[in-house]
Amino acid sequence: MIIGHVIGSVWATRKDERLNGLKLLVVKPKYSEGLDSSFVAADLASAGVGDDVLVTKGSSARTAFGKERIPIDSVIVGVIDSIDITDE
Amino acid sequence: MIIGHVIGSVWATRKDERLNGLKLLVVKPKYSEGLDSSFVAADLASAGVGDDVLVTKGSSARTAFGKERIPIDSVIVGVIDSIDITDE
Amino acid sequence: MIIGHVIGSVWATRKDERLNGLKLLVVKPKYSEGLDSSFVAADLASAGVGDDVLVTKGSSARTAFGKERIPIDSVIVGVIDSIDITDE
Amino acid sequence: MIIGHVIGSVWATRKDERLNGLKLLVVKPKYSEGLDSSFVAADLASAGVGDDVLVTKGSSARTAFGKERIPIDSVIVGVIDSIDITDE
Amino acid sequence: MIIGHVIGSVWATRKDERLNGLKLLVVKPKYSEGLDSSFVAADLASAGVGDDVLVTKGSSARTAFGKERIPIDSVIVGVIDSIDITDE
Repeated sequence: MIIGHVIGSVWATRKDERLNGLKLLVVKPKYSEGLDSSFVAADLASAGVGDDVLVTKGSSARTAFGKERIPIDSVIVGVIDSIDITDE
Repeated sequence: MIIGHVIGSVWATRKDERLNGLKLLVVKPKYSEGLDSSFVAADLASAGVGDDVLVTKGSSARTAFGKERIPIDSVIVGVIDSIDITDE
Repeated sequence: MIIGHVIGSVWATRKDERLNGLKLLVVKPKYSEGLDSSFVAADLASAGVGDDVLVTKGSSARTAFGKERIPIDSVIVGVIDSIDITDE
Repeated sequence: MIIGHVIGSVWATRKDERLNGLKLLVVKPKYSEGLDSSFVAADLASAGVGDDVLVTKGSSARTAFGKERIPIDSVIVGVIDSIDITDE
Repeated sequence: MIIGHVIGSVWATRKDERLNGLKLLVVKPKYSEGLDSSFVAADLASAGVGDDVLVTKGSSARTAFGKERIPIDSVIVGVIDSIDITDE
């Protein structure tokens, strides 16, 4: 999973209907510079802008949903309370 | 998902027949420089050159189609209306 | 698999319930500089901070669990005793 | 999918028997410098050295074959006739 | 697939039991500098240190085994005899 930081959101009216009702947030890997590696994740953890989040990617992201066939590859599965880095 | 920007299209006569009829667009990750990280995505959202789009990758891309066995790993699943970045 | 070095841990109260009870460790690829490429892996090998570990990613990570539908994409599957590099 | 450029081929006598009979080509992402990001793809589109090709990666690559269990992660699924980039 | 160069091996006593008996080799992408992008692959082609090898990654790596549920994401599927690059 990636430690992400939520920096914004994205709106799309014309989209795959299985994405309807999902909150689509823009996430930046927390320790990366710039927007280069930012991406969009569906939020399943009631996250908001400014939160540090746990993001699952790839086919594992789909398992967060009740159905297997949904064209989503990044999901916010948790909101991080604290990161404890002791041996960098 | 990736925030992509559609910059062109690609034509291939000789190809896997399951790709027939699909619009294949060249997409650049919106916040990347140069063509280095550009790629080709099948368009399922009536996107066009100049659009910002939502791209799903990997096995999740296949779920956008009615059939599971299709050799496609990148799909445009939405056309972006607005991107709201407030906490960069 | 990746040769990782465990550098810390992460806490998340609000998360997908299938992540409950799992130890979530912060891992840095051993031969990378900085935190840029660090990520979070579920620990299934009783690893601790300071250990070199073997990390499996992607859908293969899910096979480490008894159930297929779990939104996890990185798992520590072993604690490394020694790395023997002879032909760099 | 990736826009690749076929730069060579690779020979392996000792290999998984499911790779027997497949043409294994060395592909460089077209807009990348150097050999760093080059890789090997199984050719299913009668491609040759010098061709620009469409490459599918990951589990989607396997769907190009008649059988699901084949240890291949990159497949040439088309030969590109023209690339039209209008909004770089 | 990746063109890898086997540079060493790794030992782990405490590990997922499905990894027992597998030779775990350290592989460096052949055309990359440094150890940064090195990784560990299970050897199914009787490879050894110094060999150039063909490595399959991701879910496709699992198909090299007789069973689907094995937490491995990189497998050596062939030993390369020769690489012929003619149009760099």
